[in-house]
Amino acid sequence: MGLFTPAALARAFAPDTRIERMLEVEAALARAEATAGVIPADAAEAIAAQCRAEAFDVDALERSARDAGNLAIPLVAALTRVVAERAPQARGYVHWGATSQDIIDTGIVLQLRDALGFIDAELARLCDALATQADAHRRTTLAGRTWLQQASPTTLGLKLAGCLAGFQRDQARLAALRPRLLVVQLGGAAGTLASLGDRGPAIMAALADVLDLGVAPAPWHTQRDTLCECATALGILTAGLGKLARDLALLAQTEVGEVAEPQAPGRGGSSTMPQKRNPVGASVAIAAATRVPGLVATMLTAAVQEHERGLGNWPAEWETLPAIVECCGSALVAMAEVVSGLVVDADRMQANVALTHGQLFAEAAQFALAPSLGRDQAHKLVADACRRAASEGRHVREVLAETPAARTTLDGAALDRLFDAQHYLGASDTFIDRVLAAMPR
Amino acid sequence: MGLFTPAALARAFAPDTRIERMLEVEAALARAEATAGVIPADAAEAIAAQCRAEAFDVDALERSARDAGNLAIPLVAALTRVVAERAPQARGYVHWGATSQDIIDTGIVLQLRDALGFIDAELARLCDALATQADAHRRTTLAGRTWLQQASPTTLGLKLAGCLAGFQRDQARLAALRPRLLVVQLGGAAGTLASLGDRGPAIMAALADVLDLGVAPAPWHTQRDTLCECATALGILTAGLGKLARDLALLAQTEVGEVAEPQAPGRGGSSTMPQKRNPVGASVAIAAATRVPGLVATMLTAAVQEHERGLGNWPAEWETLPAIVECCGSALVAMAEVVSGLVVDADRMQANVALTHGQLFAEAAQFALAPSLGRDQAHKLVADACRRAASEGRHVREVLAETPAARTTLDGAALDRLFDAQHYLGASDTFIDRVLAAMPR
Amino acid sequence: MGLFTPAALARAFAPDTRIERMLEVEAALARAEATAGVIPADAAEAIAAQCRAEAFDVDALERSARDAGNLAIPLVAALTRVVAERAPQARGYVHWGATSQDIIDTGIVLQLRDALGFIDAELARLCDALATQADAHRRTTLAGRTWLQQASPTTLGLKLAGCLAGFQRDQARLAALRPRLLVVQLGGAAGTLASLGDRGPAIMAALADVLDLGVAPAPWHTQRDTLCECATALGILTAGLGKLARDLALLAQTEVGEVAEPQAPGRGGSSTMPQKRNPVGASVAIAAATRVPGLVATMLTAAVQEHERGLGNWPAEWETLPAIVECCGSALVAMAEVVSGLVVDADRMQANVALTHGQLFAEAAQFALAPSLGRDQAHKLVADACRRAASEGRHVREVLAETPAARTTLDGAALDRLFDAQHYLGASDTFIDRVLAAMPR
Amino acid sequence: MGLFTPAALARAFAPDTRIERMLEVEAALARAEATAGVIPADAAEAIAAQCRAEAFDVDALERSARDAGNLAIPLVAALTRVVAERAPQARGYVHWGATSQDIIDTGIVLQLRDALGFIDAELARLCDALATQADAHRRTTLAGRTWLQQASPTTLGLKLAGCLAGFQRDQARLAALRPRLLVVQLGGAAGTLASLGDRGPAIMAALADVLDLGVAPAPWHTQRDTLCECATALGILTAGLGKLARDLALLAQTEVGEVAEPQAPGRGGSSTMPQKRNPVGASVAIAAATRVPGLVATMLTAAVQEHERGLGNWPAEWETLPAIVECCGSALVAMAEVVSGLVVDADRMQANVALTHGQLFAEAAQFALAPSLGRDQAHKLVADACRRAASEGRHVREVLAETPAARTTLDGAALDRLFDAQHYLGASDTFIDRVLAAMPR
Repeated sequence: MGLFTPAALARAFAPDTRIERMLEVEAALARAEATAGVIPADAAEAIAAQCRAEAFDVDALERSARDAGNLAIPLVAALTRVVAERAPQARGYVHWGATSQDIIDTGIVLQLRDALGFIDAELARLCDALATQADAHRRTTLAGRTWLQQASPTTLGLKLAGCLAGFQRDQARLAALRPRLLVVQLGGAAGTLASLGDRGPAIMAALADVLDLGVAPAPWHTQRDTLCECATALGILTAGLGKLARDLALLAQTEVGEVAEPQAPGRGGSSTMPQKRNPVGASVAIAAATRVPGLVATMLTAAVQEHERGLGNWPAEWETLPAIVECCGSALVAMAEVVSGLVVDADRMQANVALTHGQLFAEAAQFALAPSLGRDQAHKLVADACRRAASEGRHVREVLAETPAARTTLDGAALDRLFDAQHYLGASDTFIDRVLAAMPR
Repeated sequence: MGLFTPAALARAFAPDTRIERMLEVEAALARAEATAGVIPADAAEAIAAQCRAEAFDVDALERSARDAGNLAIPLVAALTRVVAERAPQARGYVHWGATSQDIIDTGIVLQLRDALGFIDAELARLCDALATQADAHRRTTLAGRTWLQQASPTTLGLKLAGCLAGFQRDQARLAALRPRLLVVQLGGAAGTLASLGDRGPAIMAALADVLDLGVAPAPWHTQRDTLCECATALGILTAGLGKLARDLALLAQTEVGEVAEPQAPGRGGSSTMPQKRNPVGASVAIAAATRVPGLVATMLTAAVQEHERGLGNWPAEWETLPAIVECCGSALVAMAEVVSGLVVDADRMQANVALTHGQLFAEAAQFALAPSLGRDQAHKLVADACRRAASEGRHVREVLAETPAARTTLDGAALDRLFDAQHYLGASDTFIDRVLAAMPR
Repeated sequence: MGLFTPAALARAFAPDTRIERMLEVEAALARAEATAGVIPADAAEAIAAQCRAEAFDVDALERSARDAGNLAIPLVAALTRVVAERAPQARGYVHWGATSQDIIDTGIVLQLRDALGFIDAELARLCDALATQADAHRRTTLAGRTWLQQASPTTLGLKLAGCLAGFQRDQARLAALRPRLLVVQLGGAAGTLASLGDRGPAIMAALADVLDLGVAPAPWHTQRDTLCECATALGILTAGLGKLARDLALLAQTEVGEVAEPQAPGRGGSSTMPQKRNPVGASVAIAAATRVPGLVATMLTAAVQEHERGLGNWPAEWETLPAIVECCGSALVAMAEVVSGLVVDADRMQANVALTHGQLFAEAAQFALAPSLGRDQAHKLVADACRRAASEGRHVREVLAETPAARTTLDGAALDRLFDAQHYLGASDTFIDRVLAAMPR
Repeated sequence: MGLFTPAALARAFAPDTRIERMLEVEAALARAEATAGVIPADAAEAIAAQCRAEAFDVDALERSARDAGNLAIPLVAALTRVVAERAPQARGYVHWGATSQDIIDTGIVLQLRDALGFIDAELARLCDALATQADAHRRTTLAGRTWLQQASPTTLGLKLAGCLAGFQRDQARLAALRPRLLVVQLGGAAGTLASLGDRGPAIMAALADVLDLGVAPAPWHTQRDTLCECATALGILTAGLGKLARDLALLAQTEVGEVAEPQAPGRGGSSTMPQKRNPVGASVAIAAATRVPGLVATMLTAAVQEHERGLGNWPAEWETLPAIVECCGSALVAMAEVVSGLVVDADRMQANVALTHGQLFAEAAQFALAPSLGRDQAHKLVADACRRAASEGRHVREVLAETPAARTTLDGAALDRLFDAQHYLGASDTFIDRVLAAMPR
């Protein structure tokens, strides 16, 4: 569990929640089997009545899991014991026809459903915040930067809308994977459900019904593609959050100062530097984006599971998938907070635009001259002007004004206009509009 | 380029194909701009006429790329030179309004479109082969194995159908990502298309039209989610291929001998062991599945790209994404071949089922006894019988026949039936049917 | 924390141990500063007296860490509060001159020292067990396998000695990294120790002395190579453990049956299959080997830390490095147990050697014939004989005996000798001796 | 092969070099066997005479490798053919006693030796450049930055010396791994060298002698720890190069402007922005550092190789290890160039220090006041002063001068001194000296 994991996700993947979800599956299985007439209805209810996590010693179960190989074995044994005590007639029907992995996998699916609910909600909140800011800052100009160098003007609105477009695609991916992922696992020992005779498919359907999950065409004990799809979709989302975080952190650098994270007491200080206001939200998201790729790789490596159930690769998922969800969730919460309360310093943006005395507008100048000179000659002319301006400590506008080939095309007004970012934003507004148009009303 | 890369993919990602695709984009851009009235139509045609890869020195371009930082810069310079020689009036319109990344990214999209066409076709071929074999072997029983131990009976048909179900989901994922991935990149220096004035969106649409690609709501220079989605979808598919390959290789072990890869002269020998017939197809797929997770992790790490264009993370994609596609493609080709020509030894499967003298049917025995004894007591009784049978070197059937609690429930005929895999296949057929039902007619 | 983490490592990396180690560093720092005359000796003792982990609310500290950005900030605040209460004169000397990362990093170094002690001891235990088994089984022959196919004979002793040789190199790597890794971190805000005036190096040395750690030439806040070295050394060791585990699990397959893990009640059962004895030790090691590569990749990615202290990459280490140590430790404990109690079935090994009716000795036959025929012709002759033997269901010896070119070279006694594994072990003994010679007496 | 791979490394890992190295091993093996009296001396010379790479069709060999499973099989066949033509009496002695992996692995070791020679030389060059710059800039002060925020003063010399200390440890690691890595592989079919009777160890020693390599205690066909050690050592080095590159790129940002990469015609331009001077050296190193972690993870995953030779994991190394070496080498060359020609703007550093009107000296002020107020009260007082200064747009010095608790301790001269970076460098010089002292004379 990471330091930065949101409480809701920490709860979703806590050791006792894991046990709770597995017990929920055992209870649902008993009821589904009763519905299908495979076990007596009162036995099912008696079993379900004992499926309360608080009655079990989670630490002891975890200790036994080491020798047993998984948590379901000691849990089924413990559940059988308590059922035997309270309802002896039901003890023989506990865990009927299922294998350990049926219980553990379906339990994980339930945990993931909760977690994805949280992720979806936080992602929607972030998207709303981005949409609001992108709209509010559609004419807030700043230096576009490429290769960590000032490049050409852009708007804060477009910067944020670009991220938003990516997050909208993340939403589509997360929506698409749900029906594939949120299905019961029920296959019995070798995936045939032979233990349930000819009632296997009916019970699988009933179990899905009780748990409000879907059904896959066949058990997926060693087909881990849907878990991997969940891992990778969250991995892609987390990378997008890392990108947004790094951009904002770069803009928040002392020497740039164009944005700041929202401030609050106790937020972002230092144990030794009294002046510090660290971008802690970005730090959380970058930490997540740093961790997630390796964790995703583990899920893909672990997916090569042998035969009907693998050896060792399955347990490799148990810590890894929750860690991915937690990383993603922590980054989401952090960035939703940062974007919602983002402090924008438009004056500083203008000051930074002015820093290079017109170099930021070199492409603009090139395209102003290209119709008469050709793009390649204009490129050369402006590059020379930029170099001269830089070496002489002058504004590019001045140098261009002295350059005959430029002067013939551009008069003073045209030159002034050239060095105004508001006149060199191209389709920024259109792009923002297109992205905002995809937001739900 | 890996040793095992299929020729079609090797070609799709060869150095000169990369140049070819970039030139295709430059040509299309010129034409789109002519259509939009931004550059003269004859200039566009003159430029397009020079966009022939064979006219360029790929090695020299690659050498220059090191200092320039990317391939587009020397390519645009070289293209401008040849245009200037052949059609001086057009030289000023080369690469009009675009930035290097526009050309390189759109070129990659074109390469990926070709590659995905190949992947889709091979995947369809593999799915067909799996469907055929799953149907043919729906009653071919063998030992289901879990934790690399014999577990309970299953069928070869279900084994293959389980893999097929995963590949069908891979097909769905690959289909879903296409419209997001196969879009032009066009943003100019800072992603605003300011270089094209108010014609940016129109030219973007026209360029998409010429190249038969889609359009994204905004430039995606530093939104790499769609490339990551492609990488991860192929990564998941490759993991599934690795699983299939490892299963078949395990079944092909000398001591198991249940399947063999198709044989051909020069295939799978040894430089020193005359008897060797190595499973070379599985080796290719496992190699791919071993490599892909780390490569996918790189794509996710690289996706955190700064501002309007990143520093260093973008080039990290250039070798990585092709390597993922090549790994996936090599594994697909290998496994389509293996599955199509799979040699199945059903007798050996039966011999292996018989190896443990009935232990494979322990779950079957448990569920035969569970209605009368309860599952937990039946489990204990059968476990004891198994242990006794093993230590005494006898068949479990014999020991059970001597056990009073078993004998009262199961007569000789019932016991015989119990140890016949054909009677303990549960829903195997149903599961196979469901998977086959999803195949296109 | 993984399900399989050994208790000693779980304790080393538990949340309260983390706090405990950080407090140990604060206490040692105060004392070192008193020694250097920078703070009063009684203040140092008063601070040290409060550095008791049980006095702090770990959960509350962790919650505050989210906003603060790291654990040291709330811990220093809490420590200052309790010192202020109990020894007001000392409150102003808490955390003197240090920065958060000094405390956290040195605390991690202390945790790693404990963990490496555990790893070293378990690794020595495993090596001893391997040495014993390698020696005991130096003439226990079995089929060598390549590409998962029987290849040529080898001995169990050599198999284990090969692994042991790798683990001996792991020991050398772990010994070599200690002096680089086990050093104090002390740099203050920007790594200059300016906060300590000209006493920085003296206090660094005194702190190292108190904690029994070494000193690096300069603070290493953003030089993470030593932590990465620890991560990779453990990663390599874990891969070796995974290799050993996979080999033993393959030998333990039902159809191979040459070894088994030691049995114990509650070990390796199944929740549904009464006969099951799963190789749970191997499962733990394979799970570890599956997880570690991605975690190592995270450490390497996180090592690119900006300037004097990075943004987000540092926290990415906090869960990752402990997870690597825990994976490695769990695999070590599991495999030491498995190797120590390994059940070896030498008869089954012989039976498996016999399975292919002499094919395993094809290379032997080739080299028996090569002096007269040349290696290439001998290869061809034996390959043909193997094919014929296989298709006719006969022993290779028989076919060779009928082959004139073979018969002229090899008489009956020579042929018999050829198909006896004991006569085709080459330098197996020598190799085992060399590896055992490197064991400490 | 990456775009940025240095020519020497591209050559070391080119397809024909691979063949060349394998042929070198075959020749050396023949000679070693002649020395040991196992094959005739004239046969050995006749074989060695044909081991010329230019006589083989590399493309055809690679195509055959797909079906064969590895390159050695078709190469041995082709070599046998040419030997048979030119020296029929020698044909039977080609590849005597070896297995494919012996040739391929020893060939890789030879390739790695060349590559490590290059890496060592470039690393020494980089270390020299860093040492020179660290010494030259030991009093060049600039803002230390933590969390991408200005923190406290430091020196450019210390920044570079910190990196240098890491690279010195990399040198130690690379030196330590050489004797483990640079050993011959020779084990024959199953690692026993049974094919060489009792001459195996003698021939192994002779082969090592011919190739000037070492000898391992036993064949290491499936003990890949030494290759992994090479991969991880280079991975750690590459991460360090990425850190240095990112720092310099951040310092080179337009708004920071404290350093610039050396300029040259054609270096770091843009295809559309005439003013651009991109940090292309840093880009190469960051690209490498982005790619390497995933590649290292692949090596660790691939190291779990089954039995005497693995299935599929071995080929997973073939593209991966060269890619790691190439990434590392490209980053080294790039950074050696950047550091050697680094353009330093000390005035801009001072201007950036001044940007925050004294906030950079908050820790300095705190420690000036701490002796009288205690560190915690001083922290609070300075934090308040910083906040007030920031909100009122004033210098922290001014605000402190008005604060009674500060004024009583610090007079005007003391205050002036406080805000001079040269007076707050602590042990910077000592740390630099210590690092430089470790340089070879």
